[in-house]
Amino acid sequence: MIKPSLAKGTRDFGPLEMKKRKFIFSTIENIFKLHGFECIETPAMENITTLTGKYGEEGDKLLFKILDSGDYWGNAEKSLLPNDIIDSHKLTPLIASKGLKYDLTVPFARFVSMHRNSITFPFKRYQMQPVWRADRPQKGRYREFWQCDADCIGSKDMSNEAELIVIFDSVFRALGIQSHQIHLNNRKILEGISTLLFPHVSFITFTTILDKYDKIGWEGISKEFGENGIGELELKGLSKFLVQEPLTEDLLNDWKAHLQSNPLAFMGLQEIEEVFNLIKTTKSCTQVVFDGTLARGLSYYTGCIFEVKIKESGLGSVAAGGRYDNLTEIFGLKDVSGVGISFGADRIFDYLENQNLYPKNIVESTKVLVCALDPESMPFAFELGMELRNNKIETVLYPGITKLKKQLDFANANQYKLVVLMGENERKENLYTLKNMETGTQTKANLQELIQSIQLS
Amino acid sequence: MIKPSLAKGTRDFGPLEMKKRKFIFSTIENIFKLHGFECIETPAMENITTLTGKYGEEGDKLLFKILDSGDYWGNAEKSLLPNDIIDSHKLTPLIASKGLKYDLTVPFARFVSMHRNSITFPFKRYQMQPVWRADRPQKGRYREFWQCDADCIGSKDMSNEAELIVIFDSVFRALGIQSHQIHLNNRKILEGISTLLFPHVSFITFTTILDKYDKIGWEGISKEFGENGIGELELKGLSKFLVQEPLTEDLLNDWKAHLQSNPLAFMGLQEIEEVFNLIKTTKSCTQVVFDGTLARGLSYYTGCIFEVKIKESGLGSVAAGGRYDNLTEIFGLKDVSGVGISFGADRIFDYLENQNLYPKNIVESTKVLVCALDPESMPFAFELGMELRNNKIETVLYPGITKLKKQLDFANANQYKLVVLMGENERKENLYTLKNMETGTQTKANLQELIQSIQLS
Repeated sequence: MIKPSLAKGTRDFGPLEMKKRKFIFSTIENIFKLHGFECIETPAMENITTLTGKYGEEGDKLLFKILDSGDYWGNAEKSLLPNDIIDSHKLTPLIASKGLKYDLTVPFARFVSMHRNSITFPFKRYQMQPVWRADRPQKGRYREFWQCDADCIGSKDMSNEAELIVIFDSVFRALGIQSHQIHLNNRKILEGISTLLFPHVSFITFTTILDKYDKIGWEGISKEFGENGIGELELKGLSKFLVQEPLTEDLLNDWKAHLQSNPLAFMGLQEIEEVFNLIKTTKSCTQVVFDGTLARGLSYYTGCIFEVKIKESGLGSVAAGGRYDNLTEIFGLKDVSGVGISFGADRIFDYLENQNLYPKNIVESTKVLVCALDPESMPFAFELGMELRNNKIETVLYPGITKLKKQLDFANANQYKLVVLMGENERKENLYTLKNMETGTQTKANLQELIQSIQLS
Repeated sequence: MIKPSLAKGTRDFGPLEMKKRKFIFSTIENIFKLHGFECIETPAMENITTLTGKYGEEGDKLLFKILDSGDYWGNAEKSLLPNDIIDSHKLTPLIASKGLKYDLTVPFARFVSMHRNSITFPFKRYQMQPVWRADRPQKGRYREFWQCDADCIGSKDMSNEAELIVIFDSVFRALGIQSHQIHLNNRKILEGISTLLFPHVSFITFTTILDKYDKIGWEGISKEFGENGIGELELKGLSKFLVQEPLTEDLLNDWKAHLQSNPLAFMGLQEIEEVFNLIKTTKSCTQVVFDGTLARGLSYYTGCIFEVKIKESGLGSVAAGGRYDNLTEIFGLKDVSGVGISFGADRIFDYLENQNLYPKNIVESTKVLVCALDPESMPFAFELGMELRNNKIETVLYPGITKLKKQLDFANANQYKLVVLMGENERKENLYTLKNMETGTQTKANLQELIQSIQLS
């Protein structure tokens, strides 16, 4: 006997959890579709060359790699010299040529590059699939989790960014959340500031340190910048940019004055202003925070960047995204800029679960249970099940003949509100007994009356 | 630059393919739900101990194994003796402790065993997820493909089998297919016959050979039985059982006479008769073929077995299933019988594609394109997009200002039927121009009229 267990960091989803998850996924999907995004799917398995080198050194370590089939060791040995000292690092590329996808963005870039001739640009797609990371599992972090992405590729227009902000806001409102904040920054502003203030530190180092602001605060990042040779005076120059304030006309004007002499940073600010001008009359705008501390770890972002947090949730970001100008270039497709966002379905699930925010109707059962009370009644009960389903009523036929009490216990355990009984009397009278499990009342009805009663209840 | 490519045996699904796939999945799902099955999901990754030994020796070879993270080689070396000769077979269990699921049934058995205390039996669940097999890719066979399963576990009643046959039939009819045949046999009949005729051949050998009847015919299986020591006379005894005939009362009576002296086989036949008595008045019954040659490769089946084929499709089975009495026992849960079916979504997809059977409305676009004709119009176009979406109209805002011709070409390429134009004139008049791309007509309308026109079109 094998003691049944789950692989570390993975989860089963039972019926109730699936109803809640489907509520989240369909809410997001409906809003994506309303904005004209088209669904695509890419495989779970990708050639490892598609994945490695796209997520930084840390990311490469977190890729799940799939062992080659057949005599992989025999094949690997041919590539090893007799005196080679084998280690995991050297062996992996010889025995694992495929991996599980780490996010949806890189496979999407691969998709766009491969199918470029059949795609009409600008191309708006959404994708809702699991991804895998060999992270240490902890609260809110899983090794298999779902991302829900929407990207528009082949357009540099800021109306895309504006629309994605509206989508962030629409989704969280539709999920019954009001305390979401959409943090917005622009990598051009960061790069402009970084180049001006810290010319001797690479931009990647700058964003990597800044990205930790959330976790380690000003003191923490000051220390790390210090270790990279940044003096106190320069740090003071940075501090005034690290604001988190509602995005308003006034704020934009202030920043324009600050950044006038820095062309790259100014361009980033202008992009944000363009976005602001499109959303300023919408209610979505009130949820937007200009966040100078927002850096985003991933190196491929080149313009506006987003992160959505829920106030006082204790969770990290529940959605994020940004513009990337060169993502498809690694797959041979140049000059195609894109912008996209991603919802972390699992963190949203955990939050709604903790706050008990699911609408009541999604977890309630509307099913009807049909019970045969003796063997002769079973064919009639079976036929009734078929009739009810023909009338679009979700119907469970209790499989088999057992004591009525046991069948009613089954109905209660599954929270079925209506039960139809079919026994000798019912057969003789050519009627059915409908039992309401909440009130306990029983009524007799012919087929038409029965269907009507069920549909009205 | 990396030449973008897919891992062997895997596929991308573009927008049109996804619409077709969603049609198949939702058709199957709706029918599962109508019959009261509840959705669950299990992870893609399972501990390898959950998977190995469940699918026979061949199956074990086809499992995709996931390389352990970190210094797996260092860990493996500790288990190897200095003079051990390493080979793939010996190494795999030391470096790969997880695998990708091979089907949905074994993970479901693991699920039921793990969650037995929170499940009310009989438990009807459905599951629609990808599975992975390291098979040689060929026409209609993929390494990553989708199964759609429905099982009822914890009930021995034959109404389950009857209902699953109705589900097979309902699904294929709902997909617009009429030429499906539901092949039915019972492993007890096979075991009874096998024990009687070939007492010196194991039942597994018997079913393994019989299972090939479809591919290699009578001559082929005769040869293989011969190689297992079966003489011509015994083979002749078998041949009369290998019929494929519509399931009728007469056929059942004939067989009852044949099998009277064989208690196990007779019991199998009685199970089929019980099923027949429940479905005989339904139209589903006309699609059922009693198939004495049907064996099903998987060793866990113990009662009725099913396979659905589409006549003259050249495909193998498009759906299959059967009853298993002891599947959860390997995970420590005894005496829980179940019966289930599985639809092969990818073969069904290929068939509908080849026969062009998709309903026209699922591939047609109902989206509206909103075009801004000058930069000043963009905020108005953006706002209009929001208004239309508030009225549940799927709306694409063309991102950016470009020549009208280019925007209309974009609408045509995406088969959008309606385009709304927003330019200087429209702004001045506070009206919108609605262009019908099929007729070429243009009309002016205010917001309310516009929404109405779109909703009526």
